[in-house]
Amino acid sequence: MKMPHHVLSADQFNPEILEIIFEEAERIRKADAINSVLLEKPLQGKIIPLLFWEASTRTFISSFNAVVKLGGTPVPVLNAGKFSSVTKGETLEDTIRTCADLKADAIVMRHSEAGSAQMAADILDRYAPWVHLFNAGDGKGEHPTQMGLDIYTIWRNKKEALKKGELVVALAGELSDSRVFHSDAKVLIKWGVKKFILVSEKGNDLPDDILAEAEKKRIPYIKTTDILEYAEEPDVWIFTRLQLERKKVLGKILKIFPFLRPWVRRRYNQRFGMTKKLQARMKSSALAMHPLPRVGDMPEWMDEDERAVYLSRGKDTESQVTNGLYFRTAQLKLTLAGA
Amino acid sequence: MKMPHHVLSADQFNPEILEIIFEEAERIRKADAINSVLLEKPLQGKIIPLLFWEASTRTFISSFNAVVKLGGTPVPVLNAGKFSSVTKGETLEDTIRTCADLKADAIVMRHSEAGSAQMAADILDRYAPWVHLFNAGDGKGEHPTQMGLDIYTIWRNKKEALKKGELVVALAGELSDSRVFHSDAKVLIKWGVKKFILVSEKGNDLPDDILAEAEKKRIPYIKTTDILEYAEEPDVWIFTRLQLERKKVLGKILKIFPFLRPWVRRRYNQRFGMTKKLQARMKSSALAMHPLPRVGDMPEWMDEDERAVYLSRGKDTESQVTNGLYFRTAQLKLTLAGA
Amino acid sequence: MKMPHHVLSADQFNPEILEIIFEEAERIRKADAINSVLLEKPLQGKIIPLLFWEASTRTFISSFNAVVKLGGTPVPVLNAGKFSSVTKGETLEDTIRTCADLKADAIVMRHSEAGSAQMAADILDRYAPWVHLFNAGDGKGEHPTQMGLDIYTIWRNKKEALKKGELVVALAGELSDSRVFHSDAKVLIKWGVKKFILVSEKGNDLPDDILAEAEKKRIPYIKTTDILEYAEEPDVWIFTRLQLERKKVLGKILKIFPFLRPWVRRRYNQRFGMTKKLQARMKSSALAMHPLPRVGDMPEWMDEDERAVYLSRGKDTESQVTNGLYFRTAQLKLTLAGA
Repeated sequence: MKMPHHVLSADQFNPEILEIIFEEAERIRKADAINSVLLEKPLQGKIIPLLFWEASTRTFISSFNAVVKLGGTPVPVLNAGKFSSVTKGETLEDTIRTCADLKADAIVMRHSEAGSAQMAADILDRYAPWVHLFNAGDGKGEHPTQMGLDIYTIWRNKKEALKKGELVVALAGELSDSRVFHSDAKVLIKWGVKKFILVSEKGNDLPDDILAEAEKKRIPYIKTTDILEYAEEPDVWIFTRLQLERKKVLGKILKIFPFLRPWVRRRYNQRFGMTKKLQARMKSSALAMHPLPRVGDMPEWMDEDERAVYLSRGKDTESQVTNGLYFRTAQLKLTLAGA
Repeated sequence: MKMPHHVLSADQFNPEILEIIFEEAERIRKADAINSVLLEKPLQGKIIPLLFWEASTRTFISSFNAVVKLGGTPVPVLNAGKFSSVTKGETLEDTIRTCADLKADAIVMRHSEAGSAQMAADILDRYAPWVHLFNAGDGKGEHPTQMGLDIYTIWRNKKEALKKGELVVALAGELSDSRVFHSDAKVLIKWGVKKFILVSEKGNDLPDDILAEAEKKRIPYIKTTDILEYAEEPDVWIFTRLQLERKKVLGKILKIFPFLRPWVRRRYNQRFGMTKKLQARMKSSALAMHPLPRVGDMPEWMDEDERAVYLSRGKDTESQVTNGLYFRTAQLKLTLAGA
Repeated sequence: MKMPHHVLSADQFNPEILEIIFEEAERIRKADAINSVLLEKPLQGKIIPLLFWEASTRTFISSFNAVVKLGGTPVPVLNAGKFSSVTKGETLEDTIRTCADLKADAIVMRHSEAGSAQMAADILDRYAPWVHLFNAGDGKGEHPTQMGLDIYTIWRNKKEALKKGELVVALAGELSDSRVFHSDAKVLIKWGVKKFILVSEKGNDLPDDILAEAEKKRIPYIKTTDILEYAEEPDVWIFTRLQLERKKVLGKILKIFPFLRPWVRRRYNQRFGMTKKLQARMKSSALAMHPLPRVGDMPEWMDEDERAVYLSRGKDTESQVTNGLYFRTAQLKLTLAGA
C-alpha cells in the first residue's frame, strides 16, 4: 500500500490506505498524550509553506500544528491571494515553482478555485517531482482531509460495524452542493455500509454517479424530506450548514430581499439541522457529526450531548477537530517520511 | 501566591503576585543577556496560537518572542477577523474551542470587542479547562500586560519608593477613556502611593469607583487642567495620546470639519503632552512613561532625555517595550510551567 | 573585506565582497544538499522579524527559509502596513525601535516607499546599533538582494568570462524604471564587461550617471530599439516585465481606455520580451534571466529551454530563485555571525 505522492482528492484514498493512516494517527496521538516533547521528528529540516489564498483558521492552525509536531518548519503565508505577487500578475504555477525552488519539501495549499490543487501538482510533477502537494481545500473542488477525518472519526467509534458494513449513515441537508458529503459518501460506498438515509429538499440530491456507485455495490439508499421519518435508524449522522454562497438563484433573491435571509436559514436549520425532537429520537449510540463552521444548524445546546463529536467536551471525549489534527499529522508523516 | 489560570484583567494582579512576576522577569532577562541559546525551555512542545483579530505589531511580536524565548511554538494568526471562518459565520466560541481541540496549550488573543477575552476564557473553562487564555487587549476592555509592564518599569526604577508608598504619580490626558490609566491607577492604589496628580480637560476624569478606592485608602489626588501647576512634584509621569476614535461627539464634528483635526490634536499635545517647558521643570529623577503609539504628544526630541523610558536609548537604558517582553515571558512561564 | 553592517543598497557591494558571499553561498548549498538537518546553526537564539509592509510572497518565503536554515527564528509580520499601529499613527521609526527593544537581532524589511530602509537603518544606528537591517525592497528604491542573486547566477554559470571582463550583457525593456537593471548594471560596470546591449523604447534609457560610469571604465554600450539587431552577441540576457504602475502618463491613459491595456502589454512583450525569433538566434550558451514576476514577457514555452535560468527545470538545473535563497542565507550568516 503506497501513499499517494500528492494528496489531491478523496478519490485517492480507499479503505486500505485510510486504515494505514488511521493506525499511524493513533500511534502519534498516544505518543503525543504521553509527552509531546518526545515525539519523533521525522520532518526535521523540512520546510513546508502553507499557502492559503483563502480564509480558514481551523485548517491553517491544524496544518501548522501537524507540521510542528513532526519537527518540520511551516512557513505561514496567509492571505496569499492579496499578498503574493499576484497583484503584479504572477500565476499560480510560478508561485508553486518558486516555492519548490526555495527548497520546500511539501506545500499545503488552500485556494478558492476548484482544480487549482491539481494544477499545482501537475506543475510540480513537471519541474520538481520530489515536492509533495497537500490540497487543503480548493473551492467547490476537493478537501480530502475533511473526508479523512470524518471517516477516521467513524472508524474510532464504530470500527467493527464499519468494517462489517453494518452502519446506517444519514446525510442531512446540502446533498448536492457539499463536497464533503460527496467525498464521505464515495469512501463509505467503497467500505460498504448497510444503508444511507439521505435527508434533503426535493431535488437537492447526491450526484448521480455516486448514487449509481451505491447501486452497483447494492447499498440501499432512502431519500426523504422529513428528517424525523427514519430518525431511529442511523448510527452516524452527518450534518452541514446551509451554503448560500453556492446557490445562484436563491443568492440573488436574498440580495434583493436581505430580510428574508434569517427566515431562509431558520427554515433550513429546522428541517435539516439538529432539533430537540431529533435529539430525542436518535439512537443512544449514534454519532452527530458536523464539518464546521455551523450556522445555527447544530445548536449549542447539543454540545453537551454525548453523541456530539464535532468538538470535544473535555479531555477524553471525541472531537472531529482533534481527529483532523492527528489524521493530517499521520498523512504528512507517511507521505514525506514513509511508514 | 498562585498565578491566575487565565490572564484576563489587571484586577487579577495585586502587588504580591506582580512582584513574583517581576522577580522572574529579572531572572529571565539576566539569563537572556548572557546567552539566549542557553535559556531554559519550559514551554518546549507547547503550542500557543496568537489569535489577533485586531492590529498590533508591537503586541504581536512581543508575544511571539516571549513564547519563542521559552522554547514554545507560537502559531501566528494575524488578521484573524478577516481570515477566520467568521465570514462563514463562525463564532468566537467555536474558534476558541477549535484551538483547544487542535492541542493548543494556551491562546494569546487580541480582539476589538470588550468582554471577548472573558467570553473565550469561559468557554475554555467549560470545555478545555487546561488551556490558558492571555488577553492581549480587547477593545475598550482590558489590556493587563500593559499595566504589568508599566508597574514593572516603575518597580525597576523606583522600587524602594514604590514599596514605601512614597511616589507621586502624574497621569496626563485621557483619564476617562484610557484603559491603561485605569488599570495602572487601580494597582498603584493597591500598592499605595503618596499622591496622584491628575491632569486633564475638565470632566475628563478617572472613573468614580477608582477615585473612591483612592479615598478609601486615604491616597490624595489633585485634579488640574494645567500640567505645569505641579510640574516639579511627580516621580512618575504617564502620558497617553489623544484617543479620537473613542470620542463620539468630537469624532462626528471632525468628520464634518476634517481640517480641524490637526488643530485639535496640537492643542491636546500642548496641554497634556510633553513640552519643553514641562521638560525643564520635571524632577531630574522622574520617569516619563508612554504606552505607545504616540501621536505628537511625546515629541521625538524627548527621546534623548534620560528620563524618557518608553523606548530605549542604547543597550543598558530603560525601555517599557523591553520590560513588556520580559514581563510577558515571565508571566507565560509562571502560568504554564509553574514557578 | 568586512561585510556592511546593514544591507541597504546594491552600491555597498563590490565584486570582492560579492565573491565572498558567493563562496559562502556555495558552501551552504552543498551542505544543505547533503543533509539540511546537519547544517550549522549560527543564528540559533537569534530573532529576526520580517516586516513586510508590501506584498511579496517570493521574498517573504526566501527570507523566512534563509533564517530557518541558519537556525534563527523569523517573526512573520505580513501586511505590516495594515496590521501595525500605523492606523493609530505610529511612525516607521517607532516600529523599528520597538523591534529592537523586543530583542530583534536583525530586521528584514520590505516597504513601498523609497528611502524607508535607509531611514530605518539610521534610527537603528542611533538607538540600537547592534541590530542589522536588511532591505528586501523599498518601492522604487533599492532591492540589493535581487542584484546579488542576479550576479551570483552569472558568476555560477560564467565565472571565468565574468572575471576576465569578457561578457556581453543585454538588458531589455524598462531600462529607465527598473531598479534591478540599475543595480545590476552598476555592479557589472565595477566588475567590467565587454559590452552592454541596451534594448528599449527610444528614450527609455539607463540613468545618465550609470552610462557615464560605463564610459569612465571604457565599457562600450549600444542602444537599440530592435532586440534582434544584435541577438547573436550577448552571453547574458536580462529581461523584465512592463511596469505600468511606474508610468504616470501611460497609466492615466490606460485608466481611461482600459481596453488598450492588453494591446500595450502585448506590444511591449513582442518588442522587449522573449520571442521564438529571438530564441532561435540567441547564443547556445547564453543565459536568459528574469527577476519575476513575468507577465507574458517571458513566455512559458521558454521554460523548457536550457538557457532559461529564472526557474529550475529539475534537481540540478539553474534557478535564480534558488540562487536568491542561498545568496540571502550566506549574506545573513556573514553579516550576523561573521565569516
